[in-house]
Amino acid sequence: MSVRTPDPDWPAGEEPEPRSNANPGWLSDLELAEIRGRLPLLYVEAVPVRVDGLGQVTEVGLLLRANAVGEMTRTLVSGRVMYGETVRDALFRHLEKDLGPMAFPLLPASPVPAAVAEYFPLPGISPFTDERQHAVSLVYVVPVTGTCEPRQDALEVTWMSPAEVVTPSIGDELEGGRGVLVKRALAAVGALG
Amino acid sequence: MSVRTPDPDWPAGEEPEPRSNANPGWLSDLELAEIRGRLPLLYVEAVPVRVDGLGQVTEVGLLLRANAVGEMTRTLVSGRVMYGETVRDALFRHLEKDLGPMAFPLLPASPVPAAVAEYFPLPGISPFTDERQHAVSLVYVVPVTGTCEPRQDALEVTWMSPAEVVTPSIGDELEGGRGVLVKRALAAVGALG
Amino acid sequence: MSVRTPDPDWPAGEEPEPRSNANPGWLSDLELAEIRGRLPLLYVEAVPVRVDGLGQVTEVGLLLRANAVGEMTRTLVSGRVMYGETVRDALFRHLEKDLGPMAFPLLPASPVPAAVAEYFPLPGISPFTDERQHAVSLVYVVPVTGTCEPRQDALEVTWMSPAEVVTPSIGDELEGGRGVLVKRALAAVGALG
Amino acid sequence: MSVRTPDPDWPAGEEPEPRSNANPGWLSDLELAEIRGRLPLLYVEAVPVRVDGLGQVTEVGLLLRANAVGEMTRTLVSGRVMYGETVRDALFRHLEKDLGPMAFPLLPASPVPAAVAEYFPLPGISPFTDERQHAVSLVYVVPVTGTCEPRQDALEVTWMSPAEVVTPSIGDELEGGRGVLVKRALAAVGALG
Repeated sequence: MSVRTPDPDWPAGEEPEPRSNANPGWLSDLELAEIRGRLPLLYVEAVPVRVDGLGQVTEVGLLLRANAVGEMTRTLVSGRVMYGETVRDALFRHLEKDLGPMAFPLLPASPVPAAVAEYFPLPGISPFTDERQHAVSLVYVVPVTGTCEPRQDALEVTWMSPAEVVTPSIGDELEGGRGVLVKRALAAVGALG
Repeated sequence: MSVRTPDPDWPAGEEPEPRSNANPGWLSDLELAEIRGRLPLLYVEAVPVRVDGLGQVTEVGLLLRANAVGEMTRTLVSGRVMYGETVRDALFRHLEKDLGPMAFPLLPASPVPAAVAEYFPLPGISPFTDERQHAVSLVYVVPVTGTCEPRQDALEVTWMSPAEVVTPSIGDELEGGRGVLVKRALAAVGALG
Repeated sequence: MSVRTPDPDWPAGEEPEPRSNANPGWLSDLELAEIRGRLPLLYVEAVPVRVDGLGQVTEVGLLLRANAVGEMTRTLVSGRVMYGETVRDALFRHLEKDLGPMAFPLLPASPVPAAVAEYFPLPGISPFTDERQHAVSLVYVVPVTGTCEPRQDALEVTWMSPAEVVTPSIGDELEGGRGVLVKRALAAVGALG
Repeated sequence: MSVRTPDPDWPAGEEPEPRSNANPGWLSDLELAEIRGRLPLLYVEAVPVRVDGLGQVTEVGLLLRANAVGEMTRTLVSGRVMYGETVRDALFRHLEKDLGPMAFPLLPASPVPAAVAEYFPLPGISPFTDERQHAVSLVYVVPVTGTCEPRQDALEVTWMSPAEVVTPSIGDELEGGRGVLVKRALAAVGALG
């Protein structure tokens, strides 16, 4: 069994081919590893929510999955923006990848994110860490109206109340400091109590 | 036929009763006229939009109506926040009042408005005027997914592209300086070209 | 000693005169009490902060004062928007009233608030309560660069780190549920850890 | 004389050394050219403004410079975020690079940008183009309080009123579609008339 940290962009077995691929925006694992030490990578993240008829957040969805060393962790919908792809297209693609094709997300009209998260390999520069890379993530709160079916490497989407999702125990289970991020994103939509 | 400027909160014939009414938040015309010279009134406004599957604004809806002196003017969904009512409830109520019960608006998760408009009786203090009163309006961009049936005193909801709605000729038809407001609201959702 | 709840707009002894006053925007205590049961009042609030050279929040200032029954409570810079006054003018006036003339606040370029707080007389409608009235408050995070000298009825401005100001004990001391509001406002400026 | 399009990150003669350089975040021209076809690059941009005592925008500063083929064009403060650098540090660095060390910019407390601009090599995907690369730019409105001395390849910083800067003639002089961006950024601070 492989224990390499998977790039969250790609489900197992669907990684893009090495450079011979016609699309120069696809990066091989080796190329991506090389670039990750040279440039900040641009990510989008989504906090999936359920809203009531007045638009108020009633539930927040977190992905539960096993990481490379078999620990259970929670995370958000997340992934890289590809060359030539708009932020909006990337957000939609990763929502579909992580929540399945029947989630029916309502993407925000505004491209301005609810929060900006900066992940660094070393802790202390910001609240957010990603040992693989320096990544800057545009974070959106996205209502989903359909049924979520997480992809293979996520075990489930767990729905919680806004009050529960910001408790310290859930915060500790969110990888890379995303407990802070969920709080900031909920604050931006007036759902942080 | 009455030519008084109707309070946009109330369709003709549905104005609340004078003070004898049990709910102290209902104001008679006389009381409202008195208060309007003493305090800024809190309003909500909505720019109704149609969005595509990625959340991008494709069309903007403006209300067309005849004003008190019979001129055709355009305006936004708009109305007062009542005593004891949340901003979100007021926004929903006025959307239903102006667009009908089948508009199915998607209220924003965030209570922070896309723009704040300050209307003064005298021009020059801000780009926005309202000869009746000093009003401060929280302005939201609201996708609607259903069918709009404007109430009696609005003749129709006219849908235009974001490019058309910001032309000077449409801006001139928008009452109270709302041409500027539409531009600001569209800018907030990345739809101002 | 008077135990009436002072209107925070006015230092003791400086309340505006009754209606005979030439400016119809000034309200007597009686008139204000009457209106408070009929309409939502528009407020502005400021979370005063100190920032470093890169604009990051390093400290948050809370006002400490004794309330009408002699309890120590903490609060934010806060006050009503007057008839004919812009939101920006009101924000500046209340900053000067609560922090003194040497605080040198840097008002935000944007009129869109960091948060919107809705205060109701009865708890449960929102996280925020004000037994006197229904008030809707536009909340801004305002860097101050000078020296703060609180007015007579505030004992001091206490500066705390962003981490300290969101602890439950400080949250409990903030009146009207403003502990939640401080969290939301700090989240909006990326300072909620 | 070289006519290559200079990377705006680096004043002439100060480009970082090729890969032998100890810091892996520095990219040679060749490496940068290679990466530009593979990944979206993360940029920050600033719209420098002068504000009055109440924080309202009174003037907007545009950089005037000659491009590679000798045409005069206008642009914003702009540059790449480097590996390991925070968005805030990058914003400060590029403000100093483009406006000089005495500009004394007041960086926003919030890391959430006023606008997000997506530049593509081909027109039509968004309003913004950059023939060199796919870049995503976080755009901030930044008050400057000191004296601006543009670096060598910018001829001057031209200050204009908010009304003048959004005229079509100035919009046409702004490179890469940034006329639209200036409008959106001014709208975000309530300064788009």
